[in-house]
Amino acid sequence: MTTVTVWNEYRVEKEDEEAREVYPDGIHEAIADFLRDEGFDAQTATIDEPEHGLTDEVLDETGVLTWWGHEAHEEVEDEVVERVRQRVLEGMGLLVLHSGHFSKIFKRLMGTTCDLKWREEGEKERLWTVEPGHPIAEGIPESIEVPEAEMYGERFDVPAPDALVFTSWFEGGEVFRSGCCYRRGAGRIFYFRPGHETYPIYHQPEIQKVLANAVEWAEDIGSTPPSFGNAPKPPEGI
Amino acid sequence: MTTVTVWNEYRVEKEDEEAREVYPDGIHEAIADFLRDEGFDAQTATIDEPEHGLTDEVLDETGVLTWWGHEAHEEVEDEVVERVRQRVLEGMGLLVLHSGHFSKIFKRLMGTTCDLKWREEGEKERLWTVEPGHPIAEGIPESIEVPEAEMYGERFDVPAPDALVFTSWFEGGEVFRSGCCYRRGAGRIFYFRPGHETYPIYHQPEIQKVLANAVEWAEDIGSTPPSFGNAPKPPEGI
Amino acid sequence: MTTVTVWNEYRVEKEDEEAREVYPDGIHEAIADFLRDEGFDAQTATIDEPEHGLTDEVLDETGVLTWWGHEAHEEVEDEVVERVRQRVLEGMGLLVLHSGHFSKIFKRLMGTTCDLKWREEGEKERLWTVEPGHPIAEGIPESIEVPEAEMYGERFDVPAPDALVFTSWFEGGEVFRSGCCYRRGAGRIFYFRPGHETYPIYHQPEIQKVLANAVEWAEDIGSTPPSFGNAPKPPEGI
Amino acid sequence: MTTVTVWNEYRVEKEDEEAREVYPDGIHEAIADFLRDEGFDAQTATIDEPEHGLTDEVLDETGVLTWWGHEAHEEVEDEVVERVRQRVLEGMGLLVLHSGHFSKIFKRLMGTTCDLKWREEGEKERLWTVEPGHPIAEGIPESIEVPEAEMYGERFDVPAPDALVFTSWFEGGEVFRSGCCYRRGAGRIFYFRPGHETYPIYHQPEIQKVLANAVEWAEDIGSTPPSFGNAPKPPEGI
Repeated sequence: MTTVTVWNEYRVEKEDEEAREVYPDGIHEAIADFLRDEGFDAQTATIDEPEHGLTDEVLDETGVLTWWGHEAHEEVEDEVVERVRQRVLEGMGLLVLHSGHFSKIFKRLMGTTCDLKWREEGEKERLWTVEPGHPIAEGIPESIEVPEAEMYGERFDVPAPDALVFTSWFEGGEVFRSGCCYRRGAGRIFYFRPGHETYPIYHQPEIQKVLANAVEWAEDIGSTPPSFGNAPKPPEGI
Repeated sequence: MTTVTVWNEYRVEKEDEEAREVYPDGIHEAIADFLRDEGFDAQTATIDEPEHGLTDEVLDETGVLTWWGHEAHEEVEDEVVERVRQRVLEGMGLLVLHSGHFSKIFKRLMGTTCDLKWREEGEKERLWTVEPGHPIAEGIPESIEVPEAEMYGERFDVPAPDALVFTSWFEGGEVFRSGCCYRRGAGRIFYFRPGHETYPIYHQPEIQKVLANAVEWAEDIGSTPPSFGNAPKPPEGI
Repeated sequence: MTTVTVWNEYRVEKEDEEAREVYPDGIHEAIADFLRDEGFDAQTATIDEPEHGLTDEVLDETGVLTWWGHEAHEEVEDEVVERVRQRVLEGMGLLVLHSGHFSKIFKRLMGTTCDLKWREEGEKERLWTVEPGHPIAEGIPESIEVPEAEMYGERFDVPAPDALVFTSWFEGGEVFRSGCCYRRGAGRIFYFRPGHETYPIYHQPEIQKVLANAVEWAEDIGSTPPSFGNAPKPPEGI
Repeated sequence: MTTVTVWNEYRVEKEDEEAREVYPDGIHEAIADFLRDEGFDAQTATIDEPEHGLTDEVLDETGVLTWWGHEAHEEVEDEVVERVRQRVLEGMGLLVLHSGHFSKIFKRLMGTTCDLKWREEGEKERLWTVEPGHPIAEGIPESIEVPEAEMYGERFDVPAPDALVFTSWFEGGEVFRSGCCYRRGAGRIFYFRPGHETYPIYHQPEIQKVLANAVEWAEDIGSTPPSFGNAPKPPEGI
């Protein structure tokens, strides 16, 4: 059974009443809850815990890490970012959620700015499944409607994904590559756009199903670590 | 200088008054015209010519072939389809336009159904440049607005493109991967969604610029043909 | 539990003594055997059965089909090829083995010639795992050595794979993309190079492990079929 | 005309007699020379110049930057690395050569370790053209033989390339993805394996031709910069 560590900045839900109403125990608890319902072993970690809750011990038992951050990206210690990056390259899965596109860890793994357009007007969003045969789309309808969302629009400055599973349509006229799969080192990364601190998007069953699928897809399979460096001559000589 | 052969079914423009008004000499002449203005050597071919105008002699001098068809896909002879396919695999570029998604040649090269959703309501379309650094996007703005278009919606049943350059937004709520690059054999293929027989889309300067860029990108570079079959032992022995 | 249908031409093992010694009950029985040992429900089908053993009933219960053919590719009925292709596009997995690169079904799904170089000299082959984090590489060492193999060399005329898992080195000086993943429609396809009728390659445990992993990776997940064709106006109007 | 800036660490050629004999004026001058012969405007920059020779003024006029480094990667200032990275994301081409795989700039853009296996035994290398239709392979034979090379072997810990153009075979039994194309931001990156400070590999005409092709492929096309950040409501309202 995969152990998921649900990481959350956990600031806005303490400061902002509207956010607290939607996610009274924080976004992390909402996500951990439905993952537990799907049968995963889920724990949480937040920015204000020592080492942001991401000690070696925690990461040792983490198969998949999910990441939600928004206003405090710069407060995440570089040392912890590097520790997480090493784990991903060694095989740990990483799910980057919504405004996590601007987290240090995502930018570090992508190598690009990860910038985009945005607008907060409570617009309708429709996510279209462009790759219905992908495991992350299992059981997902042709399109998911999010009644009110913050718009994210292209150009999304990321490397072209290894697989593009969802593309979003927004009422105001934009599109966005909303479900992007990457492999980096031995690890798998899924960026998933929907989610916000005041819209109840993580309470939508289809969104929860996508995330549960993504956890399963991203889980560390314990692959054989390659050997690097000086390679001895093969015994039979050259 | 690349020679472009602009292929057109050329039926609807003869039968339908509305189409004739928009493209009095056929869609092929409209396309050939602006390609000539961009400096290409463009000739045309249509379905009712002998061998559909695609004889060996014509293909011998063709660096890039563009394909527009709609209602008569099934009338294109398999022998000609196979001839064109061989040329693409040997290095000839192929631009598949709008309803050409259902042509025999595109379906044959893709291996999939190439099916999609459609609706004719004269909806607004906005093409977003998702890969601004791609040569096909050179000089193209962040988005192109097509005032009235036939909607094409996902799922578009094609292999994931090697590069996705444009994604369309439609007024009615759909999205579409509108600019898809593929390499097959030594040839390059670009599927470009915009275009229709009664909307004057091929008269839009930005659409013309995309197609001119695509011709340049797809042109046959005369690559070294690989040798296939039984490979002799290397001289030094095994 | 995935049901695997192991398809084999099953000609050379009846005609050639050397092949019969290595695979006394045919290559299909050897493959089905180790897949059963891995816990899969495996059945077989061969070219000389009615409809080549690939009736609608058989395909209805098939999650993954494996394909080995060599000298009788042209005898496979187009109708059966088309039936299999439809199933793949709807979600059935397909594993194409060794000389199956020239099967009608693989060429039809790829759209290219699928040609390559070859040499039968019993050369040493080393498969390097270039993507150790891929599920097909789970439990596979950094490299697999095949003591005696038929050489297949690049250029392998296929579309660039969605993921490249293994690359082969050959004693005589060639390389080959030996483990290639594709998604077509809702189905997943894995081409795996090793295998031959007279070298006991399918008896090697690492080769068996790769194929078992590939069956698991390719299995039909029962994805939501997209709707195609005329899409009604959304209820809220355009 | 593209301006190429050829960057070189330029240490080993001053310290090591063997290297000095092969590249008396440094690797950078050898590369700049043959690029000039191919019609490019080439200038050079080295690590011991102020700002490593990569001032804003130099980068302003650089369409493509080539990078060779080996023992002093860590001496390259982070500020200069970040400056170069920004330029690549804005459209400047980058060619990373041989041991440049471990440069800060390549690791930063890839997000992975970029580690590999190596062995210095003067082994024979054969580069196979796996994508003969790619512009970088124009005029290149099916395979290029390098008589004596340092071996680089898989697993090469980089993201899967957007296009894989060459794969190397080594006498001692390894393979390597030797020609890897990436797009990052608006810029194009090509990693090319061959090259060494004491083997005269950059004097080989086929190797020079690959690099000249790569310069042409990678050159900055002056693409439209996307706008990022808060996007105003479209005029027609939402």
